[in-house]
Amino acid sequence: MTVVARQFHLRARPEGLPASDNFELVERSLPAPHSGQVLVRNLWLSVDPYMRGRMTGRESYIPPFEIGEPLDGAAIGVVVESDDTGLRPGDVVSHFAGWRDYAVVDATSATKIDPAIPEQAYLGPLGFPGFAAYIGLLRIGKPQSGETVFVSAAAGSVGSLAVQIAKIKGCRVVASAGSEEKLRWLRDEAGVDATINYKEAGDMSAALDTAAPEGIDIYFDNVGGTHLEAALSAANDFARFALCGMIDQYNSEPSGPRNIYAAIEKSILLQGFITIHNMSVWEDFQRDVARWILDGEIKWQETVLHGLESTPAAFLDLFAGKNIGKMVVDLRDDPQGGS
Amino acid sequence: MTVVARQFHLRARPEGLPASDNFELVERSLPAPHSGQVLVRNLWLSVDPYMRGRMTGRESYIPPFEIGEPLDGAAIGVVVESDDTGLRPGDVVSHFAGWRDYAVVDATSATKIDPAIPEQAYLGPLGFPGFAAYIGLLRIGKPQSGETVFVSAAAGSVGSLAVQIAKIKGCRVVASAGSEEKLRWLRDEAGVDATINYKEAGDMSAALDTAAPEGIDIYFDNVGGTHLEAALSAANDFARFALCGMIDQYNSEPSGPRNIYAAIEKSILLQGFITIHNMSVWEDFQRDVARWILDGEIKWQETVLHGLESTPAAFLDLFAGKNIGKMVVDLRDDPQGGS
Repeated sequence: MTVVARQFHLRARPEGLPASDNFELVERSLPAPHSGQVLVRNLWLSVDPYMRGRMTGRESYIPPFEIGEPLDGAAIGVVVESDDTGLRPGDVVSHFAGWRDYAVVDATSATKIDPAIPEQAYLGPLGFPGFAAYIGLLRIGKPQSGETVFVSAAAGSVGSLAVQIAKIKGCRVVASAGSEEKLRWLRDEAGVDATINYKEAGDMSAALDTAAPEGIDIYFDNVGGTHLEAALSAANDFARFALCGMIDQYNSEPSGPRNIYAAIEKSILLQGFITIHNMSVWEDFQRDVARWILDGEIKWQETVLHGLESTPAAFLDLFAGKNIGKMVVDLRDDPQGGS
Repeated sequence: MTVVARQFHLRARPEGLPASDNFELVERSLPAPHSGQVLVRNLWLSVDPYMRGRMTGRESYIPPFEIGEPLDGAAIGVVVESDDTGLRPGDVVSHFAGWRDYAVVDATSATKIDPAIPEQAYLGPLGFPGFAAYIGLLRIGKPQSGETVFVSAAAGSVGSLAVQIAKIKGCRVVASAGSEEKLRWLRDEAGVDATINYKEAGDMSAALDTAAPEGIDIYFDNVGGTHLEAALSAANDFARFALCGMIDQYNSEPSGPRNIYAAIEKSILLQGFITIHNMSVWEDFQRDVARWILDGEIKWQETVLHGLESTPAAFLDLFAGKNIGKMVVDLRDDPQGGS
């Protein structure tokens, strides 16, 4: 079968907020899979805030995207053609050749998913967003029952899992998000104890003091900026801060936490982390979160855009706060290529 | 014996840089020591940057100084009169009733010192400054032989011990200080590998990149501000930052590290700490550092002012960077009170 894949390339590096003309849709004929490879048709694509960092040319923990080259990212696809003994046509796999409709990938980088769990959960709670929540909350936060946990951007794909794992561990949870709709979901579905609408709070420190009068023991940071300052101010002695993301800093002039000295006064641990450095606990993560999902202990939300062409818009919407929960692109109804 | 002690009280809380009129010298008659107490005549007083924090009224890890009340701090004194079975007149002890010439203290809070070691070393390398260096470098930094360690304010009482412990542990050491005289001592006596004169460096990040082309694995922070930003910029993956002090922030409008996001990209640990939370390793510290001193592996410098009246000036000089090594006040030639 000859397949023409449609894939997004980086046309230009964004300055500040990305825009749709940073991307271009390109058609490429795919070779037939070699031995040990499979051809997959993507069903779901992931867009994630960390991709913004890869759009700058700077070296980082993960190579930058190159201009004129295809973007990539997490995706769920169905095997169409296989030259691998372990995967067969019809198998649904998670892999990393996103931002496109068809891809030839090494079978070793494609993992069959549990058919009892919705496919796209493998881009959210069972994907890298969930893994980030799992590592940050459990390995860095080390929550004890009865402690208070503050999670920023708590309705997002990472934050929403962090708050629910914190509840499973017996913590009191304070969550911030940017709309009443998100806060309602956090209270009613995710079971958090107190919420802050950061867009209406004004003084974040005062809002956090009100929401957590007993102080906070763990801060799961997805935002940076004034959220991080408020958390330093509200922290109890020996608080642990899992620094996962700082979406406030990605597109604007960065600012540092002016009260960083609180880290000394209160013996605070701040630990930055990257999921890919923690792969030794991936199996534990998959086992625990799959069980929590099957037991109904973990809920998640997703914002779905339809069709490959909407992928850049889905990505841009992340920075406008338009998604609730995991932002995914559904390709299942796209016209099928091949001949 | 009736003794009239001369002691410094806090007259007013400093705004910004402390000034001499924040202090007043007051005379007070001391009661005779009760059972379990001793009367000590102080021989040496310590002044330390952390005392600035206690002069604000804010609650912290250690109670604030109160207006109209005596200041205190580390001191070395000789027992003049004892109502305790463990201490005898003539014993030299370290204790915490500083900023005065005479004091009645509980014997349980006074510790006899090793007569083979200079008395005032118990205010520096064997006192809390040395303890801070020991904890920050070893417990947080966890140095491995061959790693690169950056220490700011490295000629100070904390920094100078941190650099030497790092050398004992086989590390390459980069030290910053504010004068060529300090840097010369660091190179020639403390054995550091590269130095930065932060007053002349201009761009601290560029200076640190030049001094540590291989990046840094440990940062021992006594300064904050642009030093902390430079360290975040130069950090290698999995670097450990021991946050001990931020003298840049004590007297001016604080600013945060604008590149704090580097902590995520490079999985950096930042750990603030307070000596008094780590007393479980005090005995290890005393044993190790006393041995290093007796073996000639640890050198230290001190800046000595003479006479009780000079105590506020000694304290103020800390913030003007006038001291080299530990700032102490020598009371041995002061007129002796009592009747």
